[in-house]
Amino acid sequence: LVSVLSLAIIVYRLPWTWKCSKLLMKFIHAGLNTIAMILAIVSMVAVFDYHNARNIPNMYSLHSWIGLTAVIFYSLQLFLGFAVFLLPFAPVPLRAALMPIHIYSGLTIFATVIATALMGITEKLIFSLKNPAYSASPPEATFVNCLGLLLVIFGALILWMASRPHWKRPPEESAKILQPIGGTPEGTEAESTMTDGSNADKSDLRINSEAARKQNLKLDEAGQRSTM
Amino acid sequence: LVSVLSLAIIVYRLPWTWKCSKLLMKFIHAGLNTIAMILAIVSMVAVFDYHNARNIPNMYSLHSWIGLTAVIFYSLQLFLGFAVFLLPFAPVPLRAALMPIHIYSGLTIFATVIATALMGITEKLIFSLKNPAYSASPPEATFVNCLGLLLVIFGALILWMASRPHWKRPPEESAKILQPIGGTPEGTEAESTMTDGSNADKSDLRINSEAARKQNLKLDEAGQRSTM
Repeated sequence: LVSVLSLAIIVYRLPWTWKCSKLLMKFIHAGLNTIAMILAIVSMVAVFDYHNARNIPNMYSLHSWIGLTAVIFYSLQLFLGFAVFLLPFAPVPLRAALMPIHIYSGLTIFATVIATALMGITEKLIFSLKNPAYSASPPEATFVNCLGLLLVIFGALILWMASRPHWKRPPEESAKILQPIGGTPEGTEAESTMTDGSNADKSDLRINSEAARKQNLKLDEAGQRSTM
Repeated sequence: LVSVLSLAIIVYRLPWTWKCSKLLMKFIHAGLNTIAMILAIVSMVAVFDYHNARNIPNMYSLHSWIGLTAVIFYSLQLFLGFAVFLLPFAPVPLRAALMPIHIYSGLTIFATVIATALMGITEKLIFSLKNPAYSASPPEATFVNCLGLLLVIFGALILWMASRPHWKRPPEESAKILQPIGGTPEGTEAESTMTDGSNADKSDLRINSEAARKQNLKLDEAGQRSTM
């Protein structure tokens, strides 16, 4: 689940995907997130079944509370992302306004999922290791602790990759060929707000026109205003 | 600890601090982080004393591993921040190069501290609630679960505030008065990379000169290259 989520987050940052069209990338991003959602639901059903079979109460722990919160927000995120960014109906200013929120929510949900996993690992180790107990540090405990530490390092790396402006997908060359009249290339809407309205400089290089840059800035402003 | 850490993170974002000088703000940021570090050390000593008094082994749990990792990185962060950003010796390109890393590490350590707290809460609830057990959801369990959920919400809010480019401390007016010759105002070094080399637009408004803007961009690039 975490690995599919991670792939969905960094898929725009993988250089070998920069040749793919923007639309294909969006589909891959949405598809990976849908797979992650299905995995989350399957694992939740498995947990409830396991609890019921063993007469363990459901939803009593902090792990379950935060996990369920994360899944609820994740399904909201998936639905909103689908409705606004994948379907072609949403106007560009709305997309620009929602993009910083979409990015922030995605990364925050990702971090929350990792925190939930760490709590789950802690619970499992305490409940499962009885003889010798967790506190006696048997090899299993050390091994799983290492896995937990690696999970944190992995999550930190993903967040690093996702927040570097220069690891961003470069603007699409083909946009100019497909839309030679100018206007607002479809590619602008998302990328201008990818790191919260930050890359007006890159648009400069791409669009090479003051007017387009100003329009871009206006979009950025719209994106920022909506988050107040 | 978490509240002092949070205050240290968002202190640059509080509008009533925007009138203070940049240097004073740096001192407040460093001071709050030093207080948080002292609190972390005090609480770690308390934990070791408690464990030793009760004959509980030290450092066996994932909570302790990740917590100690966070404290080690936090002390590194504090030391590097002091040496590079507070002492006046570091050259501006080095500051610009380290600022994105400083911001990323700070926020990642903050998130890790919250995850560690959540694991600690989980452990404490499992170990302390015996009759009725945690799984029977006594009022204490529900109460502490709510606290844990609030901690996540609080952390998410702090990260939201810290990552909004338009909640950034505005550039210092006095910099122009103090340094009328132009050059690189001291204020540029940090702010140009506050959201990872993103606000060349704001520098535009401030410096009003293409040359200064280009220099600013070069600094940003330096900041970005160092992170590859």
